[in-house]
Amino acid sequence: MRFDARVEVTLREGIADPEGATIERALPALGFTGVHEVRAGRSFRLVVDADSEADARVLAQSLADRLLANPVLELAAVELAAR
Amino acid sequence: MRFDARVEVTLREGIADPEGATIERALPALGFTGVHEVRAGRSFRLVVDADSEADARVLAQSLADRLLANPVLELAAVELAAR
Repeated sequence: MRFDARVEVTLREGIADPEGATIERALPALGFTGVHEVRAGRSFRLVVDADSEADARVLAQSLADRLLANPVLELAAVELAAR
Repeated sequence: MRFDARVEVTLREGIADPEGATIERALPALGFTGVHEVRAGRSFRLVVDADSEADARVLAQSLADRLLANPVLELAAVELAAR
């Protein structure tokens, strides 16, 4: 079976996010009001071949934890959709 | 009303993605097989205050298009969830 996987890598809570803070500070000058708590992260799209959705999830999560995220600072969340 | 917005910025189709290609090439050596079409992007989380979901969507999309994505190379997709 083939799955579309989306991995979102976000900073753990409490870790400083200078990129998000810089974006948030720039917003009012650009006319955007009512936007708060901007946090920057990374996103990855993969196609995974596996025997089951559970296998695909394990593969994508371990790949994300080992290769895409820095586990000291970041969390990786996997979403799967069957093709 | 307050909404959690997630913005995913991805490279447009056909734009070269050296980061994704490098990750994909590294996978077999690390024991991950059956993973294809790795594409790297960026993700942002925001909290948006607006009168309606439609207003929040317009605000988040225009902010994403103007500030978060490079419209020549990238697409910005917005997802909203009411708090």
